[in-house]
Amino acid sequence: MTVPGTTSPRMPARAPSPDLSPTSAHPRALDAESFPPNGQARVLIENVRPEIDAGRYPIKRVLGDRVGIQADVFADGHDVVVAMLRYRRETESEWVEVPMHPLPNDRWEGEFKVVELGRYRYTVLGWVDHFRSWRRDFERRLPAGVDIPVNLLVGAELIEQAAARATAEDAARLRAWADKLRQGTDLDARVHLAISEELLQVMVRYPDRQHVTHYGRELAIVVDPPRARFSTWYELFPRSCAAIPGQHGTFKDCEKQLPRIAEMGFDVLYLPPIHPIGRSFRKGKNNNPTAGPTEPGSPWGIGAVEGGHKAIHPQLGTLEDFLHLIQRARELGIEVAMDIALQCSPDHPYVRDHPEWFRRRPDGTIQYAENPPKKYQDIYPFDFETDHWAPMWEELRSIFLFWIGKGVKLFRVDNPHTKAFAFWEWAITTIKRDHPEVLFLSEAFTRPKVMYALGKLGFSQSYTYFTWRNTSWELERYFTELTQTEVREIFRPNLWPNTPDILPEYLQHGGRAAFIARLILAATLGASYGMYGPAFELGERQPLAPGKEEYINSEKYEIRHWNLDHPDSLQEIITLVNQCRKSNPALQSDEHLVFHPVDNPELVCFSKQTADRSNTILVVVNLDPHHVHTGWVHLKLDQLGIHGGEQYQLHDVISHEFYLWHGARNLVRLDPHIFPAHLFQVRRYVRTERDFDYFF
Amino acid sequence: MTVPGTTSPRMPARAPSPDLSPTSAHPRALDAESFPPNGQARVLIENVRPEIDAGRYPIKRVLGDRVGIQADVFADGHDVVVAMLRYRRETESEWVEVPMHPLPNDRWEGEFKVVELGRYRYTVLGWVDHFRSWRRDFERRLPAGVDIPVNLLVGAELIEQAAARATAEDAARLRAWADKLRQGTDLDARVHLAISEELLQVMVRYPDRQHVTHYGRELAIVVDPPRARFSTWYELFPRSCAAIPGQHGTFKDCEKQLPRIAEMGFDVLYLPPIHPIGRSFRKGKNNNPTAGPTEPGSPWGIGAVEGGHKAIHPQLGTLEDFLHLIQRARELGIEVAMDIALQCSPDHPYVRDHPEWFRRRPDGTIQYAENPPKKYQDIYPFDFETDHWAPMWEELRSIFLFWIGKGVKLFRVDNPHTKAFAFWEWAITTIKRDHPEVLFLSEAFTRPKVMYALGKLGFSQSYTYFTWRNTSWELERYFTELTQTEVREIFRPNLWPNTPDILPEYLQHGGRAAFIARLILAATLGASYGMYGPAFELGERQPLAPGKEEYINSEKYEIRHWNLDHPDSLQEIITLVNQCRKSNPALQSDEHLVFHPVDNPELVCFSKQTADRSNTILVVVNLDPHHVHTGWVHLKLDQLGIHGGEQYQLHDVISHEFYLWHGARNLVRLDPHIFPAHLFQVRRYVRTERDFDYFF
Repeated sequence: MTVPGTTSPRMPARAPSPDLSPTSAHPRALDAESFPPNGQARVLIENVRPEIDAGRYPIKRVLGDRVGIQADVFADGHDVVVAMLRYRRETESEWVEVPMHPLPNDRWEGEFKVVELGRYRYTVLGWVDHFRSWRRDFERRLPAGVDIPVNLLVGAELIEQAAARATAEDAARLRAWADKLRQGTDLDARVHLAISEELLQVMVRYPDRQHVTHYGRELAIVVDPPRARFSTWYELFPRSCAAIPGQHGTFKDCEKQLPRIAEMGFDVLYLPPIHPIGRSFRKGKNNNPTAGPTEPGSPWGIGAVEGGHKAIHPQLGTLEDFLHLIQRARELGIEVAMDIALQCSPDHPYVRDHPEWFRRRPDGTIQYAENPPKKYQDIYPFDFETDHWAPMWEELRSIFLFWIGKGVKLFRVDNPHTKAFAFWEWAITTIKRDHPEVLFLSEAFTRPKVMYALGKLGFSQSYTYFTWRNTSWELERYFTELTQTEVREIFRPNLWPNTPDILPEYLQHGGRAAFIARLILAATLGASYGMYGPAFELGERQPLAPGKEEYINSEKYEIRHWNLDHPDSLQEIITLVNQCRKSNPALQSDEHLVFHPVDNPELVCFSKQTADRSNTILVVVNLDPHHVHTGWVHLKLDQLGIHGGEQYQLHDVISHEFYLWHGARNLVRLDPHIFPAHLFQVRRYVRTERDFDYFF
Repeated sequence: MTVPGTTSPRMPARAPSPDLSPTSAHPRALDAESFPPNGQARVLIENVRPEIDAGRYPIKRVLGDRVGIQADVFADGHDVVVAMLRYRRETESEWVEVPMHPLPNDRWEGEFKVVELGRYRYTVLGWVDHFRSWRRDFERRLPAGVDIPVNLLVGAELIEQAAARATAEDAARLRAWADKLRQGTDLDARVHLAISEELLQVMVRYPDRQHVTHYGRELAIVVDPPRARFSTWYELFPRSCAAIPGQHGTFKDCEKQLPRIAEMGFDVLYLPPIHPIGRSFRKGKNNNPTAGPTEPGSPWGIGAVEGGHKAIHPQLGTLEDFLHLIQRARELGIEVAMDIALQCSPDHPYVRDHPEWFRRRPDGTIQYAENPPKKYQDIYPFDFETDHWAPMWEELRSIFLFWIGKGVKLFRVDNPHTKAFAFWEWAITTIKRDHPEVLFLSEAFTRPKVMYALGKLGFSQSYTYFTWRNTSWELERYFTELTQTEVREIFRPNLWPNTPDILPEYLQHGGRAAFIARLILAATLGASYGMYGPAFELGERQPLAPGKEEYINSEKYEIRHWNLDHPDSLQEIITLVNQCRKSNPALQSDEHLVFHPVDNPELVCFSKQTADRSNTILVVVNLDPHHVHTGWVHLKLDQLGIHGGEQYQLHDVISHEFYLWHGARNLVRLDPHIFPAHLFQVRRYVRTERDFDYFF
């Protein structure tokens, strides 16, 4: 790993400066006094999709994605219309054009591939194609045989006009054809030429774009690395990694766990904040407002005499140790994600150096942070309404740039919804301009509109309500919203069955089967998912108190020692599930998620498929961790590309059982005490009896 | 009637010039180099509805309508947000503000009433309310009793700041209250004041709007006269109104029919073009490409030596006769609608005076107009791609202005979809600026996107596909799209069971029951409907040829003589139906149309209701004109505001039968040979046994 030097928080000037505005020419309704700029432009372009909030926000894609764009493009009357999709990298001024093809009802579709990180722009153009209109009408009129000579003259005129726009070589050919259309005694030959494919193919290269209509808005795309779409996260506290119980773990201890985490199939290791922890109002065990002298405090109580967000908590090791951890992880295919929590312990240097960034009450005190019903007595919030917001923004952004300079590419941002929206848009947009490979995970557990807004403003991934969605109705409704509506353009779900903050009720009471069910759901409903690892692997399920969803003896407030070799560990199952995710591209995207009805609501059934249908995964989960459930599954065969009469094979990648199914309706029985889920690869019957393996 | 003088086609200058642009400040994504203009503005405003194509087009309302606006308005964190709706007449610069009230999920709603014709604008603002946030948190913290004195100081500071924005009187009160909060030994009294309603009521008058967020787009409304929403059209050819068969009818003859038309309950009399008819390529009987010397030709072959679109066909009478007809009609509550067809017979003065407005072929000829599969050999289209489009637009608009100057307020525009979109937007917008009472009916029978675009561009009403929607599935699907989606904001349906161009198959084969069924459907599904009168009243049903949907011996090409007193005339039923429309406000709007399931697809059932539910109409139609059908209707009682257990009364306004229904499920039997429909007034049970009439 190379560790580049610290990047200056102020961007160097560059030309051309990328224009991040949604559009330079928003279409305007007519001014009553004046004519429109081009009254001869006859095409209307409407309803371009995807388009987020009239182009105010970009859509999200990853490297190599095909971007499909649709639009309504039509003209008055009955002339033939051409619709053209245009795209470019935002830093380039030249457009690439892709012809769109017509769908029913004046809808057009085109697509292109994004092959570089960073921002792209796209828009749509349209115009009336006089040659094709003429050609179509000419063909229609041929059987009646009227006016053929004059119509040939009209065609010749259009060809002549195209010649004026053509290369010298094509112009010569076109002029020769125009001449042939105009004269000659062999009318049949002239007609034949007029409607010939050869002529058409040259003509379409030189369209008359005099009266072209521009959609007006140039819509943006943010292209991220593939990890933005498909990632498998493991969270642990380095301070709990010591070999000897009770000792404060270090980055070096943490490094020793990397091979195990890599073998389980994780590709992101997410660490809670690694900065010095404040002493004032430090939290004790189980969120006690006062800590004993040896208690370590919460890693989110950031900042002490040792430094703030750019420093490292001394007990974890040195900056070099941290960089070594990053390097070692990367060698194992794991990226380290840092937790950035923009808040300060009362001991943070910012509190002393920048009192203007905190809101003081009339008695000189600062109100501690709250995220109702949670109280953070050890934390001061920044005042995003301060008149000194601009220098504060610069400094807060510089925290990310500092760590990016050290080689960090992933940030999990703590409670971004309690910081100003405008800050995030500015910070993420400007950081990604120079570092398009950097990703931001939003840890916003808040109202849906706010969560989606953070996605629009720039966060690459987000935590979701998955943590609390347990019934088949809840899962279908929520994941249909996330994956089958416009939400999918701006919000990439990252599914967590647990976090250090959240031990859901379902896990508290459902035993091992509940953990397995939630693992399978997270890993298959979400192309990205993560777990608060040790606690999940070991089935940790005791809450702080009955009715609470916090862990007792939470690692947030104390050092824990985990017996990761415990025989009940879920490590083996996690490994199998993650292997399945790696070997099945269908699970690496949320785009083609389909829920299939089951006549027993305790069973949920859904499928994922690659766009080319070469890989199909079918999942059935028994959501009741206590009882055996049986149900008839009704597969939507048309959506899977399976013909009604066809036999198809299901291979359970966990149990290695094979099933032959036929038709839409099939029976499933799941005993949670054996295993609460089927994770099927679906293979269609494609070979003859002479082959050994009939399915692919 | 007063006949104002001709209005100049060029609008007089006025100040302030109305700004018809959708927005003066489209929100822009961040420029990478610079900070946003106000980094302290914490509110986001999204998803304002209604909003058509990002504000590119206005929504439509009529005088007196309440306009309900919704938006997502939210801030980061947990502070209290205020959302404010703003509106103004477009010609005024001062906004009127209406506080919005919160709905679930960060959605807000507000409404206002439009009380003047012309254009309005609306937009949304939002800001964080620090006083209300403080007050809420203070109340929440009270039970714990911590930090009360310092929190009172914080409140006092906010009150002091509001005082600086207040009137002198309120400022004095606020300052006195701030002082009380700060000091005094009676803590309870200070707390009581802090959370008092009295203080809050003064504080909300002086919000801190320093960091307000503007939605950015100012969206437009076109406010039309009520007739735009509710109108009943009757079409006839004045030339067929002569008392003596074979004679060419006149405006004077037409005038004699006005009392009969008024008695039937029509409020619009629509006349096909009344201009001089060309001689060249004049059409003969039944669309014969050649006419005999005495044949009258098609009124749509406009223009002859006698003049063009501003002249009157001499055989119909004089301009004075026409103006007299308008005046007499208005006295009877009928508005005369003119047909404007922007096309020319080869004899039109425009063809001679403005050859540059027509596209000539290389042999000097002009291609006649087509609207596939129809051919109009007697008509030249204007070339909307001419380089001389601007003066042509001015002249074409001047046709409307000429007739507006004569007192005409309604125009039925022939085939607007074969003229340039941009022309219509410019012409209608500029005409309505000075004549907001003028309405335009779009006769566009074409693809759905084009029909809706014409509505967006300015047409007040439009013909629809009703003419061909016959089954219950078709009717429910189409009218749900028209009335329950965004379409209703920009497209006002006008339903026609027939036109001189269209004799639908259903009418050809269904006998009298078919005519009655289509009449009831048109008159109740559409707040606006019309009929090509004499042919409909008399059940004219013979097509040009089997499989064609044109009339034989169509009035388009010849003079007809109608025996309007025929005993089979539908006049009496039409009168009853129109009376029902007039006396039931539920039928005067399409907003609250609900379809109710019936277990027999040959029966269609739907209801209309006023917004306040004081008037409810329930319609059941047997769509099979040949057989008796029986079916169970399942009323959506919740949508009708009827409680499940309640008894309710149905009064058939045609048969005057009364029914008592109970619950959602009720049986209907309709014999088309008696009457194919029920047209029920629904009355809920509200009185006691002591009253005579239990329902209202």
